[in-house]
Amino acid sequence: MKAYSEMTKNERLAELAVQKQLYQKEKAAGHALNMTRGKPDATQLNLSMDMLQQNPYDLIYTRRGTDVRNYGELAGTDEAKELFAEVLGLKPENIFMGGQSSLSLMYDMMIKALVLGVYGGSKPWGQQGPLKFLCPAPGYDRHFRICEEFGIEMISIPMTPQGPDMDMVRQYAESDPSVKGIWCVPKYSNPQGYTYSDETVEAFAALKPAADDFRIFWDNAYYVHGFREKDDPLANIFDLCKKYGSEDMVYEFMSTSKVTFAGAGVAVFAASENNIEFLTKQMSVQTLGYDKINQLRHVRYFKSAAGLKKHMKKQADYLRPKFDCALAAMENGFGGLGIGEWTKPNGGYFISFDGLPGTAKRTVQLCAEAGVALTPAGAAFPYGLDPEDKNIRIAPSYPTTEQLYQSINIFCICEKIAALEVLTAE
Amino acid sequence: MKAYSEMTKNERLAELAVQKQLYQKEKAAGHALNMTRGKPDATQLNLSMDMLQQNPYDLIYTRRGTDVRNYGELAGTDEAKELFAEVLGLKPENIFMGGQSSLSLMYDMMIKALVLGVYGGSKPWGQQGPLKFLCPAPGYDRHFRICEEFGIEMISIPMTPQGPDMDMVRQYAESDPSVKGIWCVPKYSNPQGYTYSDETVEAFAALKPAADDFRIFWDNAYYVHGFREKDDPLANIFDLCKKYGSEDMVYEFMSTSKVTFAGAGVAVFAASENNIEFLTKQMSVQTLGYDKINQLRHVRYFKSAAGLKKHMKKQADYLRPKFDCALAAMENGFGGLGIGEWTKPNGGYFISFDGLPGTAKRTVQLCAEAGVALTPAGAAFPYGLDPEDKNIRIAPSYPTTEQLYQSINIFCICEKIAALEVLTAE
Repeated sequence: MKAYSEMTKNERLAELAVQKQLYQKEKAAGHALNMTRGKPDATQLNLSMDMLQQNPYDLIYTRRGTDVRNYGELAGTDEAKELFAEVLGLKPENIFMGGQSSLSLMYDMMIKALVLGVYGGSKPWGQQGPLKFLCPAPGYDRHFRICEEFGIEMISIPMTPQGPDMDMVRQYAESDPSVKGIWCVPKYSNPQGYTYSDETVEAFAALKPAADDFRIFWDNAYYVHGFREKDDPLANIFDLCKKYGSEDMVYEFMSTSKVTFAGAGVAVFAASENNIEFLTKQMSVQTLGYDKINQLRHVRYFKSAAGLKKHMKKQADYLRPKFDCALAAMENGFGGLGIGEWTKPNGGYFISFDGLPGTAKRTVQLCAEAGVALTPAGAAFPYGLDPEDKNIRIAPSYPTTEQLYQSINIFCICEKIAALEVLTAE
Repeated sequence: MKAYSEMTKNERLAELAVQKQLYQKEKAAGHALNMTRGKPDATQLNLSMDMLQQNPYDLIYTRRGTDVRNYGELAGTDEAKELFAEVLGLKPENIFMGGQSSLSLMYDMMIKALVLGVYGGSKPWGQQGPLKFLCPAPGYDRHFRICEEFGIEMISIPMTPQGPDMDMVRQYAESDPSVKGIWCVPKYSNPQGYTYSDETVEAFAALKPAADDFRIFWDNAYYVHGFREKDDPLANIFDLCKKYGSEDMVYEFMSTSKVTFAGAGVAVFAASENNIEFLTKQMSVQTLGYDKINQLRHVRYFKSAAGLKKHMKKQADYLRPKFDCALAAMENGFGGLGIGEWTKPNGGYFISFDGLPGTAKRTVQLCAEAGVALTPAGAAFPYGLDPEDKNIRIAPSYPTTEQLYQSINIFCICEKIAALEVLTAE
């Protein structure tokens, strides 16, 4: 098929009529399909059931003899700290095992910074007047909602396949002390699946923020979630920070929500010893410790970083066909039409689609009316506002392959209608 | 033996010499005993191991078909809300299942009140200048540490066997809008084991605070922790609040840390529907939900409030002899000497001991030097300051009965020495 831009107005109107007919047929079918969130599906969750089958009597004592069923070991068991230190290329003293949700940890670090301040800061963020945060966009909607909740002004930073526009990051962070931090998903970014280049990671480590209490929220949610033979390499930011003496600037987060069980895994906070010590003191007021039985359950099941990687290979083998199916359906639907571009990630949970400007809201609305739920248009931008109204996040993990193929086909029809409406209105 | 107050100075000096001799003997024995915290012991934790032995494949789906291994159901599964509603005499819509630590929930409710405000409040607590909190004392040290962390001024309220001095509570709460709340452990209070009388609970419900955003932090940590035939009755504060239209004033907390596993149980927040709705909206920014596998694990194991009570009967049968042993050892050591009073609780985890004024710090120090670790003197008071230096918290749950008997014997010797030092110095 000809690119839509090369069609005459009449050709476009004819194509619009064809697509509308296809759309009506889909609408009449009464679909109930969902591609909104990056959720694992039941079969994927089954991959971790052996972890729960372990004999509970083998999960009582840590190596140093702590009874994990009792209070204590606020920062986590030695074994858990060691495992995730190995996974992240850090030392156990850089790890704090923080519950089961990394989002919750990020929220907690943010609200603590507001009320109590951060290590090395002269006073709590909340006592410093209006605050700003840098938000690489499109990005993770829930990061942005945390800023919104706390009234922190968000500044959009354009994303590239190499990571955020670092000139702009430097410009804001190094000139304005009210800029307190930046949200990053450095590997298989949400929603693009981009991985920050070595140069980008080094530029972060080399940052000289105007604020003495600036923090990089390094949400390494998809660090072990490559699903192809070729896994994108990500530089270890802490190694690079050592070169610049900036270790205290980075808060790293990960969890096993998409390794074992969503919301019932373990969450990890990784930071400099200064930050860990500061946090542990603050945490001693908040809790007597997080669920250590679940920590031991994870550690005894994975045994090592290699064991965890082996487990993620199973996840990859399950997820890859879904992504391949989604990508094939998109190529099939859009190929040669020149009305959209989409990312082709090697890992993570999302595909980011950019249509013609002014088509995203319309497409999501058309999909909804045909029974295909998508993440709201604009969700990946601060305040939910996509300046060009063109970005849509595709989450292929939860539907079955059949549902996914159907969903993407319908999505393609909707996007074509939206594009033709824009083009014929010109 | 004669009461110390009736002894002559020479008799006291002779008795002091005897006790010092006994003390030296104990010190030489090189004890390493610990009565610092209200921790369950390993045998007690074993009572819940069957919960972990359930087939994990029976713990996947809720009644409504939610896969608990996945994201969702932010406020908790229906089953968990129903179980704890039944336990607390409330409706499921009054329950929010909040992780595994009620202390963490309390901290979270406090920091959210500071930054975001509470339901019905005109602005966040943190934007209202210096704040105060009422602290029935002796009370739970970790409650007080939360206030201290946030710079909230603590006002001590004397405790009686019927609960806090309600005239004083009324006086402060109803006259001063900077008084934002009060900490309560209404049943088997920490450290006394007192249970608030019906009159006290009703006086709380009838409170008309000057602040429109006042909150009673009703930490019902020991609600199901009676260990004698006779269980202290506690009035349902929400029932009484209905009479006064004050339901929004109460935040109730409980957890299964001392029902199943300390730090690996489930925590419960109970409140009015207004408060629950307000919290759930706030929580939707913070997390995608707490560990629902653990919720289902608990629900399927207990089945009902009756099942949970039956389980607590086992805990009671295990704890009661420890308390009886501690109480007998104290009666044996102090009986007739007139130098101390202690509580004789029907439940909970503690005994509160009041010695002669000016003896608590000295006793704890002497115990420490003889290898018996006690909670620091004054810990049960705001800022750790016991105005009379006489209160010591005894935690009989963790040591074995043998260790407990030894520990209390040594404690008695130390307290006698401290008392005789005070009396002979007069």
